Amino acid sequence: MGSSSLATFLHEHQDELACDAIVISDTGMPDARHPALTYALRGIAAFEITLHGPARDLHSGIFGGTVDNPALALCQLLAKLRDKHGRVAIPGFYDDVQPLSAYERKQMARLPFNSRDYQKLVGVPRLFGERGFTPVEQRSARPTLEINGLTSGYQGEGSKTIVPAWARAKITTRLVPNQRPARIINLVRKHLKKLCPPTVRMEIEAGHGAEPYLVSPASAQARAALRALEAAFGCEPVLMREGGSIPIVNVFKKSLGADALLLGLALPDDNAHSPNEKFDLGCFAKGQLMSAHLWQELARL
Amino acid sequence: MGSSSLATFLHEHQDELACDAIVISDTGMPDARHPALTYALRGIAAFEITLHGPARDLHSGIFGGTVDNPALALCQLLAKLRDKHGRVAIPGFYDDVQPLSAYERKQMARLPFNSRDYQKLVGVPRLFGERGFTPVEQRSARPTLEINGLTSGYQGEGSKTIVPAWARAKITTRLVPNQRPARIINLVRKHLKKLCPPTVRMEIEAGHGAEPYLVSPASAQARAALRALEAAFGCEPVLMREGGSIPIVNVFKKSLGADALLLGLALPDDNAHSPNEKFDLGCFAKGQLMSAHLWQELARL
Repeated sequence: MGSSSLATFLHEHQDELACDAIVISDTGMPDARHPALTYALRGIAAFEITLHGPARDLHSGIFGGTVDNPALALCQLLAKLRDKHGRVAIPGFYDDVQPLSAYERKQMARLPFNSRDYQKLVGVPRLFGERGFTPVEQRSARPTLEINGLTSGYQGEGSKTIVPAWARAKITTRLVPNQRPARIINLVRKHLKKLCPPTVRMEIEAGHGAEPYLVSPASAQARAALRALEAAFGCEPVLMREGGSIPIVNVFKKSLGADALLLGLALPDDNAHSPNEKFDLGCFAKGQLMSAHLWQELARL
Repeated sequence: MGSSSLATFLHEHQDELACDAIVISDTGMPDARHPALTYALRGIAAFEITLHGPARDLHSGIFGGTVDNPALALCQLLAKLRDKHGRVAIPGFYDDVQPLSAYERKQMARLPFNSRDYQKLVGVPRLFGERGFTPVEQRSARPTLEINGLTSGYQGEGSKTIVPAWARAKITTRLVPNQRPARIINLVRKHLKKLCPPTVRMEIEAGHGAEPYLVSPASAQARAALRALEAAFGCEPVLMREGGSIPIVNVFKKSLGADALLLGLALPDDNAHSPNEKFDLGCFAKGQLMSAHLWQELARL
């Protein structure tokens, strides 16, 4: 729901809420034989860029050829934000990225993933991502830049021969530890300002931001959680990063100083947030066992 | 009105309509001291390009990083259609362009044009056009490529963190003699096909087309028209090209084999096709004189 009061409440009740760890069951597991500890979340930084050209849409016959086309200028700007190897091409963008450890990459490689099934699921002609990383890494542990929306000129049926007055793109970057939304927006702003031609006027509006989240998968608490998962499910758990964000974990961390153990038990076909949502009874039973083991494991630390 | 029956009528009544010249008053003159003969019109070729990515909009947190973004791919494609000097970057695009003669360029330079006033009129931060040509040439005698509209993903308030399923651009090229719409669309199709990455599926739909039009400004009829203009207005007329299209002149030419003398008398502030449209009484009187002179001049040929 994006509570507007929870942060204040946590801040005001820090002492009463003092704790060693936060446990949240809001994530998933790849399948019933791969119980998972999610130890990182991607953050996000959103912005909107608008290029203004002529004062109004111009007749492309009468004026076309003497003024820049804001839609074409926008394409030429945005084209330069990602190289052909899927890398974000904003100077400094990767500076703060904490590299994946060999241990993490090994753990990610253990996740069940079939690229043909995955390609079929998303319905693309071919998968595409940052070179040098597996799809599992690309979608959860690497930062990205996406155009979420493009708007310019005439969008109805048929054609309208205009040079549009403006063109706009909505963009989000997904961030990984230790990238910071404010710094990324600054880098974006600086870079686009440098690229923008003098024939159009540029406007950049920063949108929402969320910090990425990471708790060491080798911490004592994380290891305790992994033992609890293994004891409950009877098989070796996997370590996962989640590509989306759960903004509240950063608020917990700041207010209470405690890390979150993300021990979600949802299966991919649970239809989370969708019609016919379900929860598997086997996961329910094993989740109870896991909880019992977890309290014991944490108590021993 | 874009008559659907006029072409058929002309074809069926060719003999009755046999003539030496067509005279049309549907163009303008730069000001009252510059009566004008318009001797060329630009043509047009329209198309729409759609790039299809994932089967549906995808959550950019969960899937972002593993699939290409059709909006970004579209930007990268379209960015390559025009170079930084304002030249259309489609191989073969300029092959059929009939170069401007020294005489034509000299005539165009005589047209009253103030770039500061013009820039204010269109409201751009800076004028931009194909290098090596004046604004008058750029907007009437040089071919162009314009994005008329861009559509992709989310366009409402705020942000929506998706990888859009598709992205679309509406594009028109303005053509000059002797470019042909069908050939241009073929060149576009071929070039875009070559540029399109295998991570998206491309669809190109050709739209309407109109041939450019040119009658020699040095022909006997054109010279007769210029003499008639000079006699009526008492000053040396100018030669103009019009950046838009009047498709019927090509139909006249094909059906009747006669060239059109475009002798329009509209002033820039006549509000053509707009509220408060007017016609200057001075131009009306001089137009009558011009017509009288024209019949005499043409009769003498």
